[in-house]
Order: sequence, then structure tokens, then C-alpha cells
Amino acid sequence: MTPLVHAIDPSRALAVPSPGAGSADTLNILVGLFVLLLAAKVGEEIFRRLGQPGVVGELAGGFVVGPYALGLVVPGETALVLSEIGVVILLFSVGLEIKTDELLSVGRPAAVTAILGVIFPIAAGVGYAILTGEPPATAAFVGLALAATSIGITSRVLADLGVLDRRFSRIIIGAAVIDDILALILIGIVSGAATGDLGLATLGLVVGALGFVGLGFAIARRARGLSRDVFTWPLFADTPLVPVFLVMLGLAILAAFIGLAAIIGAFVAGLIIAETEAQDEIEHEIKPLAAIFTPFFFAVTGAQLDLGALTDPQLAIAAIVLALLGVATKVVAGVIGAWDSGRWSALTVGVGMSPRGEVGIVVVGLGLTLGLLSPALFSAVLVAVVLTTVVAPIMLNAVIPRAAAEADAAGSPGAGAPGSATAG
Amino acid sequence: MTPLVHAIDPSRALAVPSPGAGSADTLNILVGLFVLLLAAKVGEEIFRRLGQPGVVGELAGGFVVGPYALGLVVPGETALVLSEIGVVILLFSVGLEIKTDELLSVGRPAAVTAILGVIFPIAAGVGYAILTGEPPATAAFVGLALAATSIGITSRVLADLGVLDRRFSRIIIGAAVIDDILALILIGIVSGAATGDLGLATLGLVVGALGFVGLGFAIARRARGLSRDVFTWPLFADTPLVPVFLVMLGLAILAAFIGLAAIIGAFVAGLIIAETEAQDEIEHEIKPLAAIFTPFFFAVTGAQLDLGALTDPQLAIAAIVLALLGVATKVVAGVIGAWDSGRWSALTVGVGMSPRGEVGIVVVGLGLTLGLLSPALFSAVLVAVVLTTVVAPIMLNAVIPRAAAEADAAGSPGAGAPGSATAG
Repeated sequence: MTPLVHAIDPSRALAVPSPGAGSADTLNILVGLFVLLLAAKVGEEIFRRLGQPGVVGELAGGFVVGPYALGLVVPGETALVLSEIGVVILLFSVGLEIKTDELLSVGRPAAVTAILGVIFPIAAGVGYAILTGEPPATAAFVGLALAATSIGITSRVLADLGVLDRRFSRIIIGAAVIDDILALILIGIVSGAATGDLGLATLGLVVGALGFVGLGFAIARRARGLSRDVFTWPLFADTPLVPVFLVMLGLAILAAFIGLAAIIGAFVAGLIIAETEAQDEIEHEIKPLAAIFTPFFFAVTGAQLDLGALTDPQLAIAAIVLALLGVATKVVAGVIGAWDSGRWSALTVGVGMSPRGEVGIVVVGLGLTLGLLSPALFSAVLVAVVLTTVVAPIMLNAVIPRAAAEADAAGSPGAGAPGSATAG
Repeated sequence: MTPLVHAIDPSRALAVPSPGAGSADTLNILVGLFVLLLAAKVGEEIFRRLGQPGVVGELAGGFVVGPYALGLVVPGETALVLSEIGVVILLFSVGLEIKTDELLSVGRPAAVTAILGVIFPIAAGVGYAILTGEPPATAAFVGLALAATSIGITSRVLADLGVLDRRFSRIIIGAAVIDDILALILIGIVSGAATGDLGLATLGLVVGALGFVGLGFAIARRARGLSRDVFTWPLFADTPLVPVFLVMLGLAILAAFIGLAAIIGAFVAGLIIAETEAQDEIEHEIKPLAAIFTPFFFAVTGAQLDLGALTDPQLAIAAIVLALLGVATKVVAGVIGAWDSGRWSALTVGVGMSPRGEVGIVVVGLGLTLGLLSPALFSAVLVAVVLTTVVAPIMLNAVIPRAAAEADAAGSPGAGAPGSATAG
């Protein structure tokens, strides 16, 4: 969903380092990063001691030290980049746990979940906006903001609970990939229509996105049993880690250039490496990187939650209604799409598709930039988007154990043994 | 050496994320980081295939893509922070390989090397500046810039060659710690004198620095055999990694606040963890982090080398003379200080103390800010500082094997078996 601006900004130049200011800046930023990491971990500790999911604690920790509470840290450029690398590593780790064939085997329920999961929220968002008297273009953006799914949070919960190899997990992940492609197409069309620049460029985006994901899956299937030597022939590579890290980052960047979310590229990189002989070793080596980088994603996300906005009753009502609509529509879509997996599994799929995360944030930002969303509506949708992201892990922790028990009882073929957590 | 500015800069605020610009920025930065990492690794590969040290290849890779050559990447805030975290992890890894007692046992040669290694370069720098007609205050800054040692580069070469447990390595590391304290005191005095603000504040810095290092060593000696449980009692800590990472970053930040280099704090953290039961596991888990973060330090350092400045003959002569003086004075100091370790070991100590790195850069930047260095002299000293850093690994690769052979032949008690590389 990232705008395609490629040039390197020369205003960031530090041609001759200005060490006085430069070092003080670096120190300030290091302090901010330290506080964010510490807050995430203290939050996780408190929540886990209370029997709550650790990831909610990381979000809460980020919120508490962030600009809308204590204001100790205002996440800047470096925190956002570390957060992005964190979620890239997270989705790479998820891809690493999944065999492409197993993902393709849930293609049908995943596609139904994704398609309905885009149609229902758009209908609900547009309906809400029209009913509250907004013009159609604005309504379209509200709908769109509710349409996109970001599975960073869901992935982490699935990994923490060791259920990444369950059928419902694969449906969620497959649906999230399809959902991202659909959202890309729709954002292209809506912003094209809004700026009067619709046509070949949008078509190019669609072809590029489908080509990227299709090619990635094809390469993953061809990569089966690829020798470890493919990664360790360079003298600098004592282990496959650095070459694989470059592949992961490269595909994440490529996906972002095409207009997909960077995490889709990272996930595809994980799928590819999962098929190779390097999988075991990489699974081991990526863990320390995940342990340090991913908390920044959750802390930075938590820091974006403006609970203070909810003290304005009108804004609070709008945000809560939109968040409820956002969750309900995804849940219905998931329940319909994954119905044949069982009641609780279907519910898990729906809940797992609820977090909107950064994709929704990008859409509302675009709406504000294009002048289609008023600042008040922007705030309401933004809070709603972050709310869907923050409540998802709480709901997931309630439904996943039931879904797992249900699948075990049914002895369904897709239900494997509890897998190992990737991002614990 | 970092100025003591603690406040968080509100201009970095991204209170409500502006996703359009924000994401494009994030993408641009990710591309820049990808190019830096790739360039460092391609450079390492080429240099190692040619039989040259890999670290010089990483410096060269950074130089080639950096602003003074191809200009593909101009390292900005995030690259500088990753570079700083990289060298922090590197020095932490060095501390992790060293027992405090072994370090204290080389106290005398280390102290002599450090003290002479501050006096000689200052005399040479001041002498050069006075002879070329500069006023005394300017001469003092030129001398100071040549006085400080930064052992990031040397540590990496020592680790790559597996000689961190040799006596000469301990002398280098001990001398570098003492050198940093001396440099801190002198910078305090000179900038105090220049700004007329000399007195209690400078004394406070000195006491703080000595207290920090002394306390660190005392804690390290007390930490012997500390149980792994001390780090893994939090529920979030499946392994000691995250708590230890927080200790490392915390001590690095604390050292920087006191006015020492952040790497001194990281090194002390490594010394402490080295004595605990967590040492083995952390040595293993820090490797993937070192593999990803440390190349940024070398690539960013290489990107700061302005070889183009050497096309101005006057500047080139000044830079080369200052670089030669800088290396020669440190070599003489090391040879005198470590003479009883043997000829080649003493030479290795001298060469190992030569890189000035970021501490020298900070001093020249301060001189420019205070108006004591003209832009031309600033450039000459800056190039000289970076030159001492870049040529050190080439010289170290020539002398270390001879020093190791000499120590083996003498059967000297401090010469252990080749250790394992930390940052390979």
C-alpha cells in the first residue's frame, strides 16, 4: 500500500557528519529505543502474570510511554524503521513455518474469506458514512480503511500459541495475502478515481502484484530441497543468515515498490526458505533477531493509540461503532469462508482477519491527504483501525484454544501437533 | 565523548502518523539500509577472495555506495543509529570473550600504552599546527583529535583472526578503555578552557567516568558464576537474550551520558555477562544480531571517507602528514608500553591503538562548532582521522600472525589457544 516514491531524500544527507548534534541525536534515539523495548517487555511481563496475552502487554507498554500517555517517547524515523523490520521478520518467520502446498490446499476457503472480508466492511463503512451524511468519495475511503487486513498481530498470537500449522491458521494467512492484493487493487481504483488518474497505472499495479505473489509461490515450490550451499558459498556467509536476510529484505522492498505491503514480500521469502535445506538453521538464527526487532512493531503500534480522543463523545461513538462494524464484518466473512472447518475454527478465522493495522492507517492517511476525510472523521477512523488491531489478540486468545480442541476432537486432517512458537 | 543533550526532540514527533510521506520515507530508508548491507557484504567477499581482510571490504563497500563515490546512499539518522548499535554489539561481544582478571593483569602495560598514546599524538598534532601557523587553541584541538583511540575496527580484526585471548589483545583493549577516560578528561578541559567554562563540571565528568568503569569492573568480578535464572525469571525471557540486550544497551547509554563512548559501556556489560552462567548461551545468541548490525558500522564509516578531498594537494599533504603522525605516535606508544610482550606483540599493540574512528570525528566536529578549526583544517583532520581507521586493519593483518607466532615460540604465559571469532 506504500506510495511509490523511490528517490533518496538529499535533505537527510549527513555528508560530513556534524558530530556534536549528530551524536546527541543518536544518543537521544538510543534512549527512546531503549525505553520502547523496556516498556514493551515490562508490559508483556505484567500482562502474562495476569494471564493475558503478552502481545497486548507490548501494545500497552508502547501506549503508556507513547505520546498519548506519559509522552516519554514519540516514535520517530528510526523507531518506525525498526518497527517495519520487526514485522517483516515476524511475517518471514511465519512463512518459514508453512509449506506452500499446505497453503494452496486452503485456497478456496481463504479466497471466500478474503473476498467477503473486503466486500462486507466496505459496505458497512460506506453505509455508515452515507447515513452520517458524508459524500460518496469520503464514504469510499471509510469503507476502504475497514477493508484491509494486517496479520502482524494475528501471526504473533498464532505463533505464541503454537498453532501456526493448524488449518485455521493457514486459512487466515492465505486470506490475508489475497486480501492485501484486493485492497491494493481497490486503493488503486479509489485514489485513481479521486485524482482522475485511473487507467493503465492501476492495471500495471494489479498485474505486478499478482505476478509477484504467483512467481513467489512458483519459486517456493521449485526451491524444495535446495542445498544449504546455495546460501553459504560466499566467504562472508559462515551460516545462511546474512544471504537469507538480504533475500528477505529484498523481497519485502520489492513488494512495497509494487504497491503490496512489505510483509507480503517477507512472507513469500519465508515460504521460499521454508522449502530449502537452510530452513532449520534459519529458524534458529532468526529468533534472536525476532526477539529484538518485533517488540518495536507492537510498541510503536500501541504508541499510536489515541485513547484521549475517546473523551470527545461524538468521536468516541463514531470510533467504537466503526470498530464494531469492522470486527463484525470480518468475523461474518471468516465464518462463512471457513465454515467447513468447524464453528470455532471459522470464528478464529474471522477474528484473526480483524486487525487492520498499518494498512488501514495508510488508507486513512491517504484520505486525509486527498482532502476526502475531515480531521474529525480521520481521527475516528484511525482510532477504530487501531482498536480493531488492539482487541484482536484478546479475542484470539479466547477462541483459539476452543478451535484447536474442536479440530482435535474432529480429528480433521489439517490439524497437526502444536507447532513451535516463532516469535516468542 | 558525546555531548550531554538529553531532551527528546519534539520535531521528530510523528504524533499522528502521516502514512503517505511516512511510509515512503520508511521504504526509502529500508532501500538505503539494504544497499549498505549488500555493499558491505559484496565488498567483504571481493576483499576476502583477494586475500585481504573482510573488514576493509566492508569499509570499501560503504565508501563505494556512499556520498563520496556513487552516492547511492547518504547515511541518515537510522543508518547512524544501526551503526552505533552495531559497534555496541561488537564491543559487547569483545567483553564477552574476556575475563576481568586477565584484563587487570595487563594493567601496567595498558596504562603506559594509553598514557604515552595520548601524550605523543597531542605533542605531534600541536607541533604540526603551531609549525603551520595555527593559534594555540586550534593546535590543541588538532592534537586532541589525534589522541583518542576507537577500537571498533581493531576488535573486529582481533575477533576475525581468533586472537582475542592473546596478551597483546588484552593490552590493546585495556589501553583503549584507559585512553577513552583520558580523552574524556582532556576534551572536558580543552572545551572548558575554550568556552571559559572549566571547573566543577569537568571534575564531575572525571569522577563519573572513573566511577563507572571502576564499578563495572567490581560488578564483573562479583558476577562470577551468577545463575542463568537471574536473566530468565521474567516470563518474557525464554532465553537470557532480551534482558542481557537491555543491560548492554542500558550501560552503553549510561556511559554516553557520563561522557564516555557508548562502546565502553557495552564492553563493561560484556565483561559482566562473561562471568555469569549465561555467557555460553549469549555468545551464541548475539551472533545473528552481530552479523546483521555490525556491517552497518563499517559501511557507514567507509561512507564517511572523502577521498575526493585528497585531490586538493595542500589538503592531501596535510591529511597524509597528520595520518602518518597519528599512526607513528600510537605505534611508538604501544611499542614502549608493551615492549616486554615481545617485538611483534608490541608493534601489534601500537597498530591496534591507531584507529581514531568516531571519537576523533567528534573532536574535530566540536572544534569546527567552536570556530577553532577552519573548514579546510577540519577536512584535513577529518580525512586523517578516517585514514588512520581505514589503514589499521591492513597493517594489523600483517603484524598479528607474526605476533602470534612470536608468542607461541616464547611460550609466554598469556598466549592461549586461538579463540573463536565473535563477529565473523
